[in-house]
Amino acid sequence: MMSFPAISFRICLLTGFLASFALEPLRASRFFNLFSPDLFVQFNIQLTAEGEIRYSVYADKKTLIKQGKMGFHLLGQAPLEKGFRWLSIDTSSVDERWEPHWGEERQLRKRCSRMVVQFEQTATGKRLDLECMVFNDGVGFRYHFPSSGRHEAFILADELTSFPVTGDHDAFWIPGDYDTNEYAYALTPLSKVHAAKEVWPHGIGFRSPVSDSTVQTPLTMRTPDGMWLSIHEAALVNYPAMQLDIDRKELGLKAHLVPDGLGNKAYLRLGDHTPWRVLLIARRASELLTNRIILHLNEDPPETDCSWFKPGKYLGIWWEMHLGTHSWAGPRSEGDSLALPHGATTGSMLRLIDFAAANGFSYVLAEGWNRGWEHGDGGWSERKFSFTEAYPDVDLPRISEYAKDKGVGLMMHHETYGAVTDYERQLPAALDLMEKLGYKGVKTGYVGRIVPRGEHHDGQWMVNHYLHLAQFTALRKFFLVSHESVRPTGLHRSYPNWFSCEAARGNEFNAWSAGNPPEHETILPFTRLLGGPMDYTPGIFPVAAGSGDSLALRRVHTTLCKQLALYVTLYSPLQMAGGKLEDYESHPGPFQFIRDVPTDWDSTVVLDAMPGDFVYTARRKRGSGDWYVGMITDELARKYPLRLDFLEPGRKYVARMYADAPDAHWQTRPMAYKITEQTVDARDVLNIRLAPGGGCAISLKAEE
Amino acid sequence: MMSFPAISFRICLLTGFLASFALEPLRASRFFNLFSPDLFVQFNIQLTAEGEIRYSVYADKKTLIKQGKMGFHLLGQAPLEKGFRWLSIDTSSVDERWEPHWGEERQLRKRCSRMVVQFEQTATGKRLDLECMVFNDGVGFRYHFPSSGRHEAFILADELTSFPVTGDHDAFWIPGDYDTNEYAYALTPLSKVHAAKEVWPHGIGFRSPVSDSTVQTPLTMRTPDGMWLSIHEAALVNYPAMQLDIDRKELGLKAHLVPDGLGNKAYLRLGDHTPWRVLLIARRASELLTNRIILHLNEDPPETDCSWFKPGKYLGIWWEMHLGTHSWAGPRSEGDSLALPHGATTGSMLRLIDFAAANGFSYVLAEGWNRGWEHGDGGWSERKFSFTEAYPDVDLPRISEYAKDKGVGLMMHHETYGAVTDYERQLPAALDLMEKLGYKGVKTGYVGRIVPRGEHHDGQWMVNHYLHLAQFTALRKFFLVSHESVRPTGLHRSYPNWFSCEAARGNEFNAWSAGNPPEHETILPFTRLLGGPMDYTPGIFPVAAGSGDSLALRRVHTTLCKQLALYVTLYSPLQMAGGKLEDYESHPGPFQFIRDVPTDWDSTVVLDAMPGDFVYTARRKRGSGDWYVGMITDELARKYPLRLDFLEPGRKYVARMYADAPDAHWQTRPMAYKITEQTVDARDVLNIRLAPGGGCAISLKAEE
Repeated sequence: MMSFPAISFRICLLTGFLASFALEPLRASRFFNLFSPDLFVQFNIQLTAEGEIRYSVYADKKTLIKQGKMGFHLLGQAPLEKGFRWLSIDTSSVDERWEPHWGEERQLRKRCSRMVVQFEQTATGKRLDLECMVFNDGVGFRYHFPSSGRHEAFILADELTSFPVTGDHDAFWIPGDYDTNEYAYALTPLSKVHAAKEVWPHGIGFRSPVSDSTVQTPLTMRTPDGMWLSIHEAALVNYPAMQLDIDRKELGLKAHLVPDGLGNKAYLRLGDHTPWRVLLIARRASELLTNRIILHLNEDPPETDCSWFKPGKYLGIWWEMHLGTHSWAGPRSEGDSLALPHGATTGSMLRLIDFAAANGFSYVLAEGWNRGWEHGDGGWSERKFSFTEAYPDVDLPRISEYAKDKGVGLMMHHETYGAVTDYERQLPAALDLMEKLGYKGVKTGYVGRIVPRGEHHDGQWMVNHYLHLAQFTALRKFFLVSHESVRPTGLHRSYPNWFSCEAARGNEFNAWSAGNPPEHETILPFTRLLGGPMDYTPGIFPVAAGSGDSLALRRVHTTLCKQLALYVTLYSPLQMAGGKLEDYESHPGPFQFIRDVPTDWDSTVVLDAMPGDFVYTARRKRGSGDWYVGMITDELARKYPLRLDFLEPGRKYVARMYADAPDAHWQTRPMAYKITEQTVDARDVLNIRLAPGGGCAISLKAEE
Repeated sequence: MMSFPAISFRICLLTGFLASFALEPLRASRFFNLFSPDLFVQFNIQLTAEGEIRYSVYADKKTLIKQGKMGFHLLGQAPLEKGFRWLSIDTSSVDERWEPHWGEERQLRKRCSRMVVQFEQTATGKRLDLECMVFNDGVGFRYHFPSSGRHEAFILADELTSFPVTGDHDAFWIPGDYDTNEYAYALTPLSKVHAAKEVWPHGIGFRSPVSDSTVQTPLTMRTPDGMWLSIHEAALVNYPAMQLDIDRKELGLKAHLVPDGLGNKAYLRLGDHTPWRVLLIARRASELLTNRIILHLNEDPPETDCSWFKPGKYLGIWWEMHLGTHSWAGPRSEGDSLALPHGATTGSMLRLIDFAAANGFSYVLAEGWNRGWEHGDGGWSERKFSFTEAYPDVDLPRISEYAKDKGVGLMMHHETYGAVTDYERQLPAALDLMEKLGYKGVKTGYVGRIVPRGEHHDGQWMVNHYLHLAQFTALRKFFLVSHESVRPTGLHRSYPNWFSCEAARGNEFNAWSAGNPPEHETILPFTRLLGGPMDYTPGIFPVAAGSGDSLALRRVHTTLCKQLALYVTLYSPLQMAGGKLEDYESHPGPFQFIRDVPTDWDSTVVLDAMPGDFVYTARRKRGSGDWYVGMITDELARKYPLRLDFLEPGRKYVARMYADAPDAHWQTRPMAYKITEQTVDARDVLNIRLAPGGGCAISLKAEE
């Protein structure tokens, strides 16, 4: 140990296996290894002859990341790139159990090896520390910029972190974009990532594409060996989102931080740290879906009362607007004539409340209740909406009174069209109004260009805005769901009132664009949802809105049963039943599943899954013995022998199965379904058939 | 009238004299004249053969502005520059009296001719309307962008308004700068305006100079004929500040709007209008100081209760910090050692409260009470200060309790160092704290670069921030005084809780830079103060802080009596006694004037004044018969026979005169003064002698 040159070396809480592996390389000189508890994953850190920090990741004795760079370029200062020496290495092992407020499991276990390496840049005396955690199924590391007193400020011109993979992996990717992630996914080898060569089903309101070879994270890949990797980040706070530049020749992936309008990446101070850079590793694709590293790398929330927000389902005026039969915009004054009937009228709201109360929905949302929609998108102007003034045909006090009588919670809608600073200015009054009216939560939206001008949806300033909103709404006891916000990085652990966000291509694209291909929902759990829950707004019954081409265009690209199954396969503590009430009323059979399915779970089993092909998931309802199964496929029909061995042995269950009819097909017969009921137990196997673009939803109610 | 081609011509409320002058030119074809009520000022509007809008201004039959341009360049749209036709002209006359909540006069009379001209750009069908008011002492006009329904958004790339003057006027100017106006003034002919050729006494924290030939407004000029002009703006709302580009050869002045980080000028929507472009006109310099056009062009505040804020004087911990004997930064934890003693400790505050109570001051302010100062300027980071956490040696509840017992109001200090979005986010909690502690008002500061990055102190976004703050503080019943904010444009009429701002080179520069030249305070009323009150923070007793050069550097560049006189010559409803308590205690004689002088007035008489030379002002205390006189000079000694004919005839007054001693001199004997008292009446003449850099203050208390 003492032969290791110029290191003040400490090992804290060094466990046996750690020591045995950790000390060996130290007898060489300039590198250090950290192993996962089961030794499957190895993280290697070293200094080159020039004092550059390099890391490698191995799993199952294969190299996954080879000599990745670490460091930063600073604005107006020498780069934090080379000339480093070791100051110290602390290692420890972590094994702790914790319970999320809500989630896919009741309890989670964080088990990993942890290391903090202190580096000093000799020439400048500057410190750069690295914190690293190695799990059995992946790695996370982050940088610290230690302060020795004053919080001196500095500006990041670039983060140098790279992820040099060791093969031409197949990657599920969406193009780099500073302002949106509402793309469908492409699947190509890394060497063939070329945004301009793909056909994108767009319809996106505002885009800021980066380059043809930049992609967003989570970036999920399959190695030629059949391993699965996903690169993402955890705990994105006071920092821009990370995208990845791909070097198609060298197969290098390099961090590409979303800049501000001046081209700078992040404004930090000594004492700050970066988010975690995360590599998820799985031998089988389905294991990625229960990888909880990103949650583990986030912090618990402060000790506060969280009893006031409850996961649940909501209804709203929404699909009608996307179909174009109703409008967000209301009348300027009473009796004003409109091109389309206004959606969020008092009458519509009362009907929604009645329906919610009758069918066990917790919440009701009305989009388009407030003034501003009548002026179009407002360009790039600073103020676009009032968040306190309702249209004259929206009687807020009456709606509130009615909802209260019926025991239904109300959600407020705050679309900003990107005018964020004005939204923040109106926020105290807006929340005062919500409090006065007894609202429970708020759904935000950020369609369009951001004000402050030059800022992007995924840049540091907006990242801080979303968190400010999560904190400010929590203070006032409102839950939050955000659309067009930055994609999640596990922060729902720390901010549990921030139930979910959109931050991906949602169901609404089916209503007014080329839509989402049938494979879309099978890819989302492997990419976007690795970071956190999504408000996909499923539950659209694909009733024909026209015929011929128009039929295919203006409705979801799934069978009815697949819409049901999405409530299980796409996790969110807050799920919308996005469809029209008339469609639910005229199809009480399949609607029963939406009524029954919960949104909070004790345990989750991924039976089998393959991105782009299928996802089969079973979950047990929180505090209950009941199970729910969701199975979805892409454009291909599939058969699957569903073994019920996840059920409690010896217990009987009433299984109600919502299955595609034999002739169902997402394009031609999306509404063809068959509902059957039988008693089953853990020894049974159900033979499931999924139609092209189809799905199957099953409720399994435990008998007492 | 009917011979005027292609005009739908209406004249509303047309008064006799208007009609007689207005109709004559219409018989010609493409121009229209509007005269001031006394016919002294004439405003001419015309269309060129290409349909360009041009205006001219005449006074006393001399041309002041000759063929000024009007119009705009739009981003991505055809310019609003030519091809206009007249749609209609409405004229009316205005004669109304109104009362400001506080001010230099109890009642004001707005008397002018008003005109609204509707233009249409034939090729595009776009409307551009011009609203114009012609007063006996100047002109104001603004543009409207009429909406016919939806508020379509557009972006101004440039405002084309120009002010082509007709001679090489002598101009008092400071250089164009997007982020500061804390310059001393230069006096040159317009043809010689060249920022790089002047020697500027700087010390300014952060500057964004524009060009060598750009200057800021108010720009005050003397014509070769001896007329006085000043160009400024009124009611700057949702628009960037206007600076002026000077064409040194053609003597053209063109609007130069402060851009955002992307180079755009303003983001507007149909239905919006610009601020007023204002030309003040005076035959004698002193008349400029009672020109109230800028106030007249602002709106009355909404009908709200304004009884909760009261003009007054305040004390603070301030000069000590600027002298460098105490620090804003406090200890991180109790017992932490500091390089300088902390200024705003509980002990200092209690002493200030005692002193304020004993001497009739309304308010006490402590700068440096809150955490953040210990980290330096914070660079360009997003969060720099906490506005709710006090240093451990500042016991806020105890201070508040003590102030309440003594009947003294407290003012909170909110320095942002430019981190404005974070300040807005903290504002609700900060104001909650102020309310809980019983504070009366807040002093803000904006030293440094603005966040949102790319925005400037004087751009549209920040202009809206200042107004947001004025409104939000009013809602919570706090008054506001802002430093480093955009220079005022009469908005204190509409937002009377926004007492004053700095927005010019204040007294503090004397403590740590080459300071302010003795002429500085004689120029401010003719320039910066035309827009509104200034928090200059006078009352520094020029006690030597060292000797030799250091003596001249680290103290105000005036005699003691001039510091007293500034309370009258530099108007503000909120005046600080900026000096150290020890200095006041050791000089009770001159301090008596600061104790006595009020900050709210019934009437104001400018006895004589010349920018750069001297200002002699008398004001009558609001609701009282008492008068106060302030007389200041530049570096030259002056004599002046002060005729007291502004006093009420036949009434006796006790005049207490605070005069420079015969050997007083701002550089060598600044503290030499003589206080005399005598009984006077309106027939008396006092022979006043002002020392170099000196002044004279007089209180005249009416006998019952």
